[in-house]
Amino acid sequence: MTSKKSAMTELLKKVAAEGQKLPIAERRNFLKNGLMLAGGMLAGAAANAQASDKNLSLNLPPNLPKWSRSLGPGVLTNPYGKPSRFESHIVRRNVPWLTADRIASISFTPLAELSGIITPNSLVFERHHAGIPDIDPDQHRLMLHGLVDRPIIFTLDDLHRMPSTSVIRFLECPANGGMEWRAAQMDALQFTHGMLSCCEWTGVLLSTLLQEVGVQESAAWVLAEGADGAHLSRSIPMHKAMDDALIVYAQNGEPLRPEQGYPLRLINPGWEGNTCVKWLRRLEVGDAAWYHREETAKYTDLLADGRARKFSFVQECNSVVTFPCPEKPPTEKGRYELQGLAWSGRGKIKQVDVSFDGGVNWRRAHLKGLVLAKALTRFSLDWDWDGGPALIQSRAVDQTGYVQPTYTQLREARGLSSIYHKNAIHTWRLHEGGKVTNVQIS
Amino acid sequence: MTSKKSAMTELLKKVAAEGQKLPIAERRNFLKNGLMLAGGMLAGAAANAQASDKNLSLNLPPNLPKWSRSLGPGVLTNPYGKPSRFESHIVRRNVPWLTADRIASISFTPLAELSGIITPNSLVFERHHAGIPDIDPDQHRLMLHGLVDRPIIFTLDDLHRMPSTSVIRFLECPANGGMEWRAAQMDALQFTHGMLSCCEWTGVLLSTLLQEVGVQESAAWVLAEGADGAHLSRSIPMHKAMDDALIVYAQNGEPLRPEQGYPLRLINPGWEGNTCVKWLRRLEVGDAAWYHREETAKYTDLLADGRARKFSFVQECNSVVTFPCPEKPPTEKGRYELQGLAWSGRGKIKQVDVSFDGGVNWRRAHLKGLVLAKALTRFSLDWDWDGGPALIQSRAVDQTGYVQPTYTQLREARGLSSIYHKNAIHTWRLHEGGKVTNVQIS
Repeated sequence: MTSKKSAMTELLKKVAAEGQKLPIAERRNFLKNGLMLAGGMLAGAAANAQASDKNLSLNLPPNLPKWSRSLGPGVLTNPYGKPSRFESHIVRRNVPWLTADRIASISFTPLAELSGIITPNSLVFERHHAGIPDIDPDQHRLMLHGLVDRPIIFTLDDLHRMPSTSVIRFLECPANGGMEWRAAQMDALQFTHGMLSCCEWTGVLLSTLLQEVGVQESAAWVLAEGADGAHLSRSIPMHKAMDDALIVYAQNGEPLRPEQGYPLRLINPGWEGNTCVKWLRRLEVGDAAWYHREETAKYTDLLADGRARKFSFVQECNSVVTFPCPEKPPTEKGRYELQGLAWSGRGKIKQVDVSFDGGVNWRRAHLKGLVLAKALTRFSLDWDWDGGPALIQSRAVDQTGYVQPTYTQLREARGLSSIYHKNAIHTWRLHEGGKVTNVQIS
Repeated sequence: MTSKKSAMTELLKKVAAEGQKLPIAERRNFLKNGLMLAGGMLAGAAANAQASDKNLSLNLPPNLPKWSRSLGPGVLTNPYGKPSRFESHIVRRNVPWLTADRIASISFTPLAELSGIITPNSLVFERHHAGIPDIDPDQHRLMLHGLVDRPIIFTLDDLHRMPSTSVIRFLECPANGGMEWRAAQMDALQFTHGMLSCCEWTGVLLSTLLQEVGVQESAAWVLAEGADGAHLSRSIPMHKAMDDALIVYAQNGEPLRPEQGYPLRLINPGWEGNTCVKWLRRLEVGDAAWYHREETAKYTDLLADGRARKFSFVQECNSVVTFPCPEKPPTEKGRYELQGLAWSGRGKIKQVDVSFDGGVNWRRAHLKGLVLAKALTRFSLDWDWDGGPALIQSRAVDQTGYVQPTYTQLREARGLSSIYHKNAIHTWRLHEGGKVTNVQIS
């Protein structure tokens, strides 16, 4: 704490030493010279300096910003609120060459612009196979049938009446970072890791439904099927269905968004996003997996020997540095707070280490705020940048002791032909002068 | 758990017994009779029933909903997403007679429609004194001066470089429920308790700034002042400033919303929302409180003897039942999950009890999900409604042992002339047939 404090003092000295952040006494002289009027940029600060002197008259200075000398719009200007117009750059984006069209495509969460662990609903990445259905919740039904004693069809109202559960959990597409397997280096954090989010999900445990309809002895799998045009379906093993699988109707407090499965989706905490079937309309209990398209042709991992790993459900421990990154480079030498996100589909994050020299030396990062199982965990490290180049990496360890692998380790185990489950240690190359690019080192 | 399970079985039997939720075999016959076409309402269920039979041909039935037989819009239809058009009723609302205009007014969070503990940014209540300023973050400054060794002016970039903290905390206007003091009974949960929210807030601890600029020995208070036209200001005691007061730039992951103080606000966790100065531009350290307008003429509590309680900062332990409530009455006899929210400005919620007979008998509620200090805590109780009348109350206890008072207890201590800090046990009157209204009982 002492070294942290003294380094912070250095930062503050630096702030104080800069021209536009002079100590107040000097600022007054600066103002008296009338120089403020030329630039306009310091209007807010000038107003502050004026207001701080109780002996000044109440005549408002001409450079007081307009928002401090007027009434703004009132309540309910936006009954459902929206961001400041100055933040309109914070949006989901896609990679045009990645898919043939936008119907079966991906948009990415702008991770570089986010704080904390909650991803706001408007910025959660999208992945659709037949576009976003416009479902009328009053007409929507969920059927639960197959190897059960009492097959049943639920309305949304039925589900809202049942015992609910709320959990904060990450949601990640297993193809997150998939372009990196063959070293196609995306030029932004939004694209290297942006199929990732973390929300508070509310719904009914699937186990509650299964226990009550009576699962038959031979039951071993549950098929989940969506109501979109693709009728996307995945087979879920019974042990997950009876553990923490959740039939979700709300996300971060409000109803699910259309692109996130409105009015009903499955969330399998810690598992492939693709298994978290959106627009959920049907659950069928069976004695074997269905081997549908999304668990055979897709979402299997082709190994070096030509065999494919199937049902690789868990999103293994992973992490990434979110500052600095290509979208948010350091602007000058000095003290910063390096930040990043870590997550594991197997539980809590236990430890994150950060390297500035491509993995030769490591420093232990601080885990910030809430550390929840199967949720994003934010980490940080005080960082004094000398202006020189660096190879910045983070390496996470989860509560099971699993250590995030290097690319060499990952490729030894899984070859080069995979698309999914890329969780190798990621490297940002910080160039002399501050530019940050994406590189792969072993 | 056993009694809970058997009661749930009853609910499910009920669901299964209803006409539109027949077991699947019967549904098939229903479909064969062609009755589905007349109503249209069961289209989704019909589609489900069809799809469940693997022997059916792949010809799509004519009543398959249109969203299951077509492609929807692709990704980035809304790069910054928005709710389903079927949820457009979930908005902030105001009470037109409550204030003379909308510039210095209030809008309320639609608590009855929310799940979990996170309030989405678009639905957090509003309270402005001079409307919403449209602040350019590049021009905005925060000045920290007064009884400090090194007065300083920060840009937003300066603050973003400093060590950050993220916490999930409730935010409540101390006038929440203020209309109830004199028994002006609002007809909706949105208006009785809707000046309440809970978000993940990210920013820099005020203590970090104060420690680094060097607080002088005589320092005892900090004045916080906003950049809006009202220049709203409040005096904050040094012990809070050095404890958990946070200079916030992000809310639920993204930058603060304009109506919540963009680009910078103060959050004093657990304290009056009014002290959490929005559009923060100035912090002045002094040796005494300033006794500005918002801590004298307003935000003091007039007692029965004519004296006023001043600096009543803490939002004491409180709770409310969110289902059933006037906006969400029960629709028929049977099993429901009663839900509510509890919170305390002094720490965690320890216990919530629920009464159905106006406080004669109490049942212990279940605390759901995360139970965090100074955050909303959701509670629930399995509830079998027999269709008869009830007087439904909740009573919370916080970690200090403080028990939420009755109206009688609150009025004995505080008289009838107050506006602020109404945390008495609230009563919903459930009428025969299901209507829910707001009543006050002692």
